Amino acid sequence: MSAVSEVSSNASAIAIRRSTVAAELARVLAPESVLVEREALMPYECDGLSAYRATPLVAVIPADEQEVAAVLAVARATHTPVVARGSGTGLSGGALPHAEGILLSLAKFKRIVAVDPLARLARVQPGVTNLRISQQVAPLGLYYAPDPSSQIACSIGGNVAENSGGVHCLKYGLTVHNILKVRAITIEGDVVDIGSDALDSAGYDLLAIVTGSEGLLAITLEVTVRLLPKPETACVVMASFADVESAGEAVANVIGAGIVPAGLEMMDKLATSAVEGFVHAGYDLEAEAILLAESDGTHEEVAHEIEKMIEVMRASGATQIRCSSNDAERLRFWSGRKAAFPAVGRISPDYYCIDGSIPRGALAKVLKRTEELSERYGLRCANVFHAGDGNLHPLILYDANIPGELETTERFASDILELCIEVGGTITGEHGVGIEKINQMCTQFRPAELAQFHAIKAAFDPEGLLNPGKGVPTLHRCAEYGAMRVKGGALPHPDLPRF
Amino acid sequence: MSAVSEVSSNASAIAIRRSTVAAELARVLAPESVLVEREALMPYECDGLSAYRATPLVAVIPADEQEVAAVLAVARATHTPVVARGSGTGLSGGALPHAEGILLSLAKFKRIVAVDPLARLARVQPGVTNLRISQQVAPLGLYYAPDPSSQIACSIGGNVAENSGGVHCLKYGLTVHNILKVRAITIEGDVVDIGSDALDSAGYDLLAIVTGSEGLLAITLEVTVRLLPKPETACVVMASFADVESAGEAVANVIGAGIVPAGLEMMDKLATSAVEGFVHAGYDLEAEAILLAESDGTHEEVAHEIEKMIEVMRASGATQIRCSSNDAERLRFWSGRKAAFPAVGRISPDYYCIDGSIPRGALAKVLKRTEELSERYGLRCANVFHAGDGNLHPLILYDANIPGELETTERFASDILELCIEVGGTITGEHGVGIEKINQMCTQFRPAELAQFHAIKAAFDPEGLLNPGKGVPTLHRCAEYGAMRVKGGALPHPDLPRF
Repeated sequence: MSAVSEVSSNASAIAIRRSTVAAELARVLAPESVLVEREALMPYECDGLSAYRATPLVAVIPADEQEVAAVLAVARATHTPVVARGSGTGLSGGALPHAEGILLSLAKFKRIVAVDPLARLARVQPGVTNLRISQQVAPLGLYYAPDPSSQIACSIGGNVAENSGGVHCLKYGLTVHNILKVRAITIEGDVVDIGSDALDSAGYDLLAIVTGSEGLLAITLEVTVRLLPKPETACVVMASFADVESAGEAVANVIGAGIVPAGLEMMDKLATSAVEGFVHAGYDLEAEAILLAESDGTHEEVAHEIEKMIEVMRASGATQIRCSSNDAERLRFWSGRKAAFPAVGRISPDYYCIDGSIPRGALAKVLKRTEELSERYGLRCANVFHAGDGNLHPLILYDANIPGELETTERFASDILELCIEVGGTITGEHGVGIEKINQMCTQFRPAELAQFHAIKAAFDPEGLLNPGKGVPTLHRCAEYGAMRVKGGALPHPDLPRF
Repeated sequence: MSAVSEVSSNASAIAIRRSTVAAELARVLAPESVLVEREALMPYECDGLSAYRATPLVAVIPADEQEVAAVLAVARATHTPVVARGSGTGLSGGALPHAEGILLSLAKFKRIVAVDPLARLARVQPGVTNLRISQQVAPLGLYYAPDPSSQIACSIGGNVAENSGGVHCLKYGLTVHNILKVRAITIEGDVVDIGSDALDSAGYDLLAIVTGSEGLLAITLEVTVRLLPKPETACVVMASFADVESAGEAVANVIGAGIVPAGLEMMDKLATSAVEGFVHAGYDLEAEAILLAESDGTHEEVAHEIEKMIEVMRASGATQIRCSSNDAERLRFWSGRKAAFPAVGRISPDYYCIDGSIPRGALAKVLKRTEELSERYGLRCANVFHAGDGNLHPLILYDANIPGELETTERFASDILELCIEVGGTITGEHGVGIEKINQMCTQFRPAELAQFHAIKAAFDPEGLLNPGKGVPTLHRCAEYGAMRVKGGALPHPDLPRF
């Protein structure tokens, strides 16, 4: 059989499968909730990691729990993979469709079901955006702490799937620390309520295992989030440094002094210069690196903490220090940080955002090695990241139209992630593994540890229908990856089509 | 066969099994590390829940990882259950031996392996006591936050197994929030390192699933704990109330005002009067209930928080308010709380400590219902608990020598736990399920949820050799429990021998 006829025979097999599965789904959902046409499926081809794309067999938009259960029953009966999707803002390809699978959109699950201001809880459906929760409870003086940069668009269900973070994680924790309960449905169609409204929950900690499981264990139907009282006031210190290493040392010193800022972010010169032309945040363009450190709380607490931070930054060699004098200025300081990714997009045809985390003590070392790698690969790298909790987001600037440059970028990215492992860190901070970092999982974990992950997966989804190919690599894949690395060849790429 | 000969045949079967397993263990451990004689096994017959006792087949005290691995290899080869034990201070019978199993003591694992003051981490073996960590790092100005009342004796491995709490959990979290990594060995003998030194760990959250798993999933070999800087100062407010309900309301109001005290504890009159004759803590003996609320931080923060708390307590009807004027007085205020359990032991032949948790909003209601139950059952009940996080510890006073009184006590305790479930809480706060609360798990969870727990167990320990019969009830057991409850008969007791 020639290559061409193989492709067309595969395409016709998919077409047959599509119509079979769609027909089953049409029996349980309204016609407009089952999408099969190419144009209708296009919006679902990728998530925020747009370098990877695939057309799902079919996309469904169920309206309630019963409809989700009905979709899963079809998936079981037809042995069809299911990939759940929130807003599609994920950066590791967790919601990348499976070419032979159902894409299950939770877009219709957008109700804020209940708010209890006394218990400081909100019960929300998974399609509710992160920011909407805080907006809804703002009149009560409350907010939801985790704040990914995509918070205007990203859904709380996606936040649970990826255990998302944000600028304020340092003080307030990741998603797992800010939710109390998840109502989820397993591939078997069992609805389980995990976690509790109280201090602790009996039994194994299923809430933690489901949070960050990237849609591989169960599908979230409802989330109970913790709300926090809005702090009385907040203030940002902006400090300039003559090199990134000393900014890294300053971060370690702030934390070492027992201060837990509400946020502690670093941007290097490449990032600030990209940002400044875009949003005019007022950054010091002479500095090789700046730190933004926020304090929140009562007026007294903030005044005290800001004073201590300034002292530590000075002692760490800050060349210039400014404090926000009012809330408008504070938000302006942050506006640059929040716009950093799109701003970098303006100075380079393409950029690749990495997400790794390291022990804070290794910050200066990792920044120095990243600079060296940047020179070696001949690619610029902007550093914008959650310095306080050691969560790096190097942005590699490249041009996908230059042959081989994406491959060089991926090699550079892989080196940074493996550097994170080398210093005792991990290949994820808050973006998840998805399809993007599945090879690096082989470096991060030993076979016994990966086998334990697979056993957990089998405990929820023995047939492996939920989001297959993501999150945890097969031992076979790791063996291949290891062999290729030993040969010193180019890094292997995930098996999925890339555009 | 008569009953007598059945018993003796069972005893002789156990004796044969004991010598077989002991012989295998003697091949891999030093002779003094394998205990088989009745007198040598006696100290291991129970943990802190001394109403339940069993003699293990054999007890072993391995000295290092290799020896633990060797014991597990013997367990696998001979299909023998293994129950791990730290200091044996647990209150739910988690370390109760299995009559046909190996009791694996981690008493020799008592090294503090490393302390990193910059990263604020300590790497310790599981047999190190909770308090020793804080003592060791005190010269560095650091401490380990979770502080169970048994902290002088309880081991960090046991704290991980039970996800232990303490007075300061309200502000600083449970064990799971204060550890970063666990090195554990599975029943298969695989050593796995779970968690990471960085912000997040890739893959499913095995750290959370192992924490609180009561020795059913893996055996802890090493724990990396977070250390916190010792606060500059701390102060305790002691407030008196005319009834327990208004003290409960005051707790809700403090939290509702956005204050997160370092500790927020309640004691009722029965508890304070028992304590006062024992340790002279200076409690108000006229009050029906007192609250102890601690604030810690910088001098300014503490002054501000104490002022706010006093205001809220006054508005909530406090009849008397006192603040500790120095650290000696602060410790004296706490001494009564810490001695409450033994103090209650002085005014009653026996007492039964319950551990449930509820949403804070339900505090007043649950306290009132507990009073009613106390009258109905004719048993006194002292309330001493972590009010701030809704973690109740009612102490039922009874006399085991009065026929039927232990059974009445257990019925009372079971009613309180089911009341916790009714108001949206759970049957555990910080003591775990163990053998004690295994029946109430049937009320707390639906069959699909219990099935998911069993699947998790099978993912780690398919043969069910680690601590069988604890933590999660079989569906069969729940069916029997349900049937007995429907018949309105006496509560069934766990299958294990009780003394």
